[in-house]
Amino acid sequence: MSSTFGTLFKVTTFGESHSPALGGVVDGCLPGLELSEADIQAQLDRRRPGQSALATQRAEEDRVEILSGIEQGITLGTPIGFIIRNRDQRPGDYADMRAVPRPSHADYTYVQKYGLRASSGGGRASARETAARVCAGAIAEKMLRERAGIDIVAWVSSAGDIECAGVDPETISRPRVDAHPSRCPHPESARAMEALIAQAQSEQDSLGGTVTCVCRNVPAGLGEPVFDKLEALLAQGMLSIPAAKGFEIGSGFAGARMRGSQHNDLFIKKGDRLGTRTNYSGGVQGGITNGEPVIFLVAFKPVATIGQPQQTADFDGNPVTLAAKGRHDPCVLPRAVPIVEAMAALVLADCYLRQLQRR
Amino acid sequence: MSSTFGTLFKVTTFGESHSPALGGVVDGCLPGLELSEADIQAQLDRRRPGQSALATQRAEEDRVEILSGIEQGITLGTPIGFIIRNRDQRPGDYADMRAVPRPSHADYTYVQKYGLRASSGGGRASARETAARVCAGAIAEKMLRERAGIDIVAWVSSAGDIECAGVDPETISRPRVDAHPSRCPHPESARAMEALIAQAQSEQDSLGGTVTCVCRNVPAGLGEPVFDKLEALLAQGMLSIPAAKGFEIGSGFAGARMRGSQHNDLFIKKGDRLGTRTNYSGGVQGGITNGEPVIFLVAFKPVATIGQPQQTADFDGNPVTLAAKGRHDPCVLPRAVPIVEAMAALVLADCYLRQLQRR
Amino acid sequence: MSSTFGTLFKVTTFGESHSPALGGVVDGCLPGLELSEADIQAQLDRRRPGQSALATQRAEEDRVEILSGIEQGITLGTPIGFIIRNRDQRPGDYADMRAVPRPSHADYTYVQKYGLRASSGGGRASARETAARVCAGAIAEKMLRERAGIDIVAWVSSAGDIECAGVDPETISRPRVDAHPSRCPHPESARAMEALIAQAQSEQDSLGGTVTCVCRNVPAGLGEPVFDKLEALLAQGMLSIPAAKGFEIGSGFAGARMRGSQHNDLFIKKGDRLGTRTNYSGGVQGGITNGEPVIFLVAFKPVATIGQPQQTADFDGNPVTLAAKGRHDPCVLPRAVPIVEAMAALVLADCYLRQLQRR
Amino acid sequence: MSSTFGTLFKVTTFGESHSPALGGVVDGCLPGLELSEADIQAQLDRRRPGQSALATQRAEEDRVEILSGIEQGITLGTPIGFIIRNRDQRPGDYADMRAVPRPSHADYTYVQKYGLRASSGGGRASARETAARVCAGAIAEKMLRERAGIDIVAWVSSAGDIECAGVDPETISRPRVDAHPSRCPHPESARAMEALIAQAQSEQDSLGGTVTCVCRNVPAGLGEPVFDKLEALLAQGMLSIPAAKGFEIGSGFAGARMRGSQHNDLFIKKGDRLGTRTNYSGGVQGGITNGEPVIFLVAFKPVATIGQPQQTADFDGNPVTLAAKGRHDPCVLPRAVPIVEAMAALVLADCYLRQLQRR
Repeated sequence: MSSTFGTLFKVTTFGESHSPALGGVVDGCLPGLELSEADIQAQLDRRRPGQSALATQRAEEDRVEILSGIEQGITLGTPIGFIIRNRDQRPGDYADMRAVPRPSHADYTYVQKYGLRASSGGGRASARETAARVCAGAIAEKMLRERAGIDIVAWVSSAGDIECAGVDPETISRPRVDAHPSRCPHPESARAMEALIAQAQSEQDSLGGTVTCVCRNVPAGLGEPVFDKLEALLAQGMLSIPAAKGFEIGSGFAGARMRGSQHNDLFIKKGDRLGTRTNYSGGVQGGITNGEPVIFLVAFKPVATIGQPQQTADFDGNPVTLAAKGRHDPCVLPRAVPIVEAMAALVLADCYLRQLQRR
Repeated sequence: MSSTFGTLFKVTTFGESHSPALGGVVDGCLPGLELSEADIQAQLDRRRPGQSALATQRAEEDRVEILSGIEQGITLGTPIGFIIRNRDQRPGDYADMRAVPRPSHADYTYVQKYGLRASSGGGRASARETAARVCAGAIAEKMLRERAGIDIVAWVSSAGDIECAGVDPETISRPRVDAHPSRCPHPESARAMEALIAQAQSEQDSLGGTVTCVCRNVPAGLGEPVFDKLEALLAQGMLSIPAAKGFEIGSGFAGARMRGSQHNDLFIKKGDRLGTRTNYSGGVQGGITNGEPVIFLVAFKPVATIGQPQQTADFDGNPVTLAAKGRHDPCVLPRAVPIVEAMAALVLADCYLRQLQRR
Repeated sequence: MSSTFGTLFKVTTFGESHSPALGGVVDGCLPGLELSEADIQAQLDRRRPGQSALATQRAEEDRVEILSGIEQGITLGTPIGFIIRNRDQRPGDYADMRAVPRPSHADYTYVQKYGLRASSGGGRASARETAARVCAGAIAEKMLRERAGIDIVAWVSSAGDIECAGVDPETISRPRVDAHPSRCPHPESARAMEALIAQAQSEQDSLGGTVTCVCRNVPAGLGEPVFDKLEALLAQGMLSIPAAKGFEIGSGFAGARMRGSQHNDLFIKKGDRLGTRTNYSGGVQGGITNGEPVIFLVAFKPVATIGQPQQTADFDGNPVTLAAKGRHDPCVLPRAVPIVEAMAALVLADCYLRQLQRR
Repeated sequence: MSSTFGTLFKVTTFGESHSPALGGVVDGCLPGLELSEADIQAQLDRRRPGQSALATQRAEEDRVEILSGIEQGITLGTPIGFIIRNRDQRPGDYADMRAVPRPSHADYTYVQKYGLRASSGGGRASARETAARVCAGAIAEKMLRERAGIDIVAWVSSAGDIECAGVDPETISRPRVDAHPSRCPHPESARAMEALIAQAQSEQDSLGGTVTCVCRNVPAGLGEPVFDKLEALLAQGMLSIPAAKGFEIGSGFAGARMRGSQHNDLFIKKGDRLGTRTNYSGGVQGGITNGEPVIFLVAFKPVATIGQPQQTADFDGNPVTLAAKGRHDPCVLPRAVPIVEAMAALVLADCYLRQLQRR
């Protein structure tokens, strides 16, 4: 249902931002794979708040504990349960928000859905929920890397109106992405983003932006016709990330303005396989990978929690002025990078296993 | 799996473009609903090829036959099976394509996936597959309209570089959309699109474009937290349509360039409910509807089949020149309109039933 | 949901006994398999009413038509849609039953579930629904036989209080089962059953009984731990057959009276694999096949429709006397044989594909 | 998949008997329900080893910890994650079993499935896995009791060849069941069972038996036609319990020997609803509840781990003599009672929610 993703590589997550813990279960990981908490912790640390002055200072340690599915460092093929304790619970920060639904947050819609006005922190709508996805994604990534050589890298491709210039998707690497706290791998653009983020923060405002992701060495044949096309599952995965508002694969919206004669990816021989000269398709045709890199872009809205006072209404419709006091990022983009990678890994892991059974 | 969509309102489709028939099964429709083949045929006719000079001339009658699930014009609550016979099968047109994978088609990826080089027409990747979705969508729409007053309208919002000016999502209607064969409801833009499509056709080329869709009177509370957010399911549904390359909801990619202080949808009292002043969220917050119209946009790449000769390669990598002789649309946009509506209806019907059980 | 079965080899069925047609969709069959309507028709003919004096005389031709998923006699790997037209619709026979729920039928429970009192024939509860399962099962069986050498045979092991004596599960074959219309492969028992069925018929009464099924050459490793144990899925599949009231695998209820020292299946070398001396486990241990034959038994209640007058009540609770006039079998057992085989094939096909992806 | 059960009330479990913890996630519980760890602990304590001389002495504390989904004692409608730490890990006991697959255990089949010879304790095949189901079942039961007044009671109805005499399914209660450590509510039968279990233990042997379960106040209309009939889901649930070999509902195997004229449950008015005079159907007709008590029976094989030496073979086929040294129950029946109740609650909770959405 809402908290399970995947058909064969199946992830279920749980946890509120202020519950004792959050965590998840990965069911369907191949047996015989080397896996340790360190494999997961690396990506979790990239998602963690408080990594730099650009991000929120909430001091979560965010240590993953694997509870099952592994023996002597090897996956058993059975469900891998894991948890992360929530240590820094300060519901007090959110106390007076309970009467006022925060604009562009899920406070109002959760009440409409569940009929309950729970204490805040956002419940399952909190960005904190994504920590469990990052753990699951790290497991998926390990399997994809070891068994199929698949390699996934995402980066911040724009923040506000600043675009990241000149990234080569064939060679970009995570160390290059992490070289600057903005996770924009083009140094000059990165510095401009940093300045913009600092400015937004000083104005008690927030920024949106985009993250681009490339998946390399993806074998041809992954993805299903019709409803579970690879790009359809990626779109679901990406739009399920909090604050995501758009997705495009390959040429995307720009492709909608092109002619067929420009846009068609003509075939050429590449070594022992058939490749394409261009990759406007973004590595998929008819929903199935063609062996070219899978490239896609995700748009994130500006962070909804801002320090500026906002003229809004309480649950009863009375006008109120609201100004956030809690901890918040002016820009989620750098921390969204490992989340995008995680969802990409979950989609590919599932499609990889679904295709394995057909051979 | 690949051919089933939905959790409670569940659709399964089947059929190749050149098999004896295509069809589907809708499992989970509420009982006691008036439903006839005419309800379905209306939308199917809007999808049908050969409606105007703008579309392919393949002479499919496309008559739906309901096989089960209805008695005396009333749904029983049991699976509704339906078929559409394929009458105009001319596989000969595709004969010499069998040795050459058509660029930006699924010929190559299907061989990679299934290990079979089937005779053409595209198998499940053919746009013809969408006829079954349109039938299922019409059933979903009927249920949504009768039980919840939900109303769905899509239109062509751009073709190539021509944008449709001035549509009011609160009032736009299907008759207004259908007034021009381009399905662009702004007369001047429509004429410009028509000219552009004619030009592309004369150049044996093709065009892409975008379709916008609005869903009105959607009750608050639909959609699930985490992986099955309403926008995530819509994104999956839309990217599962052949040729779709992008999706955005509400402010979408433009929102990524905005500030939080501009983008937040502030609450105001609207009659007896809480509404928002603006609708940058596109009717969803945290994956759950807030009672405002759900608005989204889908990007379609230009049609891959073009009459112009293309320098490509055969399955063995030998260079060949390919020029399509079969029937093909220069622009799929007008026919994509009912398909987008169908997928929106399927997503909403499923989320509607999933929320019903919580009350 | 209710009308879909399986995770990777996925079957969806539709159709009422008096709708224009019934049918189904098999999604997930491996590509490259030879398959024709004749493969399906053979099993469908074994299920058909009117095969002998022992069964109902409803003259359904029951011809399957494959609509998709096959080209030139080879499966494409895409969904296989199929239908069977209902030609002999005589709802009149059931007319006066509409006001009176037939005892031990689903008339009352369907009204409770759907809130509709539909015209009769039993809707989805009719045994006619199983024709679609038999078609799907025949496809599953073909795949299992061709790709894994799996072989499934069921037979009537008791009717009323007459037990079938002396069947060797290692060698029993369908021709031997079909040698007598009772589908009891032991000639003497078969004659006794025939006499008992004739007697019940003459008394306007009906009989229950049991069907035993053996699946041979099932590779070790099929079935999943925990909820999808092979025996759990078989139990679901069997109890989903109309009139089934019990299921046991291996030693079953008799095993519950044994000691561990008797019941444990001790290992011995069998050729190049490990086998067991006895097979009280029925071919599964911990939910997973061990390479020994999978053997199970299904109990069917006596047919509910009988000619004898019954003192029951109408929907409003008023006492009425009901005596069936419609067509009905005094004993469903012989026709249940191919249905049990079909459900066994569906379960094994799904578990076979689920295990393939792990290798 | 293998570790997830249910469509709307969805349970996922994880954990090996010797992993750091086991646990699960319940997704889909209704919001607004009072729920605490004490509600769960009560049933968990009934499953726990070491309750009496009749059961194994492994000293697990088995304390459940709820990690999410609850705030101030009220369910939020979000996933309820929970864990139980494994404190008493003594893998040494199983050390020499690693080379020899235990007869009628899953050691051999797990190697066939996963290709790994993991250290023992049985992995997911261990009875310890059922602790997580009992937790999930307790949550389901709470929801069913509070929202629909449904009441579930199971008891030991036979151990070896001793049958429990004279239980009235209309009035039997858990305190009455728990009055004797055998969980057989008929005092005389209970004492006979106790003696039989003691005898088996002294002979280093083990016993099987049966558990009967009744679900009262189940509203009419639960269960789905075709594959997800209530009895089909119950059968799956029960056969998924370790050591279960058979299932029957209502008249079951005895019903197969009856005539229709005896077996049909004739309708009579019961207060303001239609009831039946007899309940051979076991509360379901056509897969859907009819408002009468749901009654079913589960057969369990004798415990496979016995102290007696057994002549078996190691993984390479060499003959060996094996005698268990680890901790083991001579009879699992008393501890199976809360597990059967848990699986019944999970099935009913799912069917209850699936029916809610139709209203």
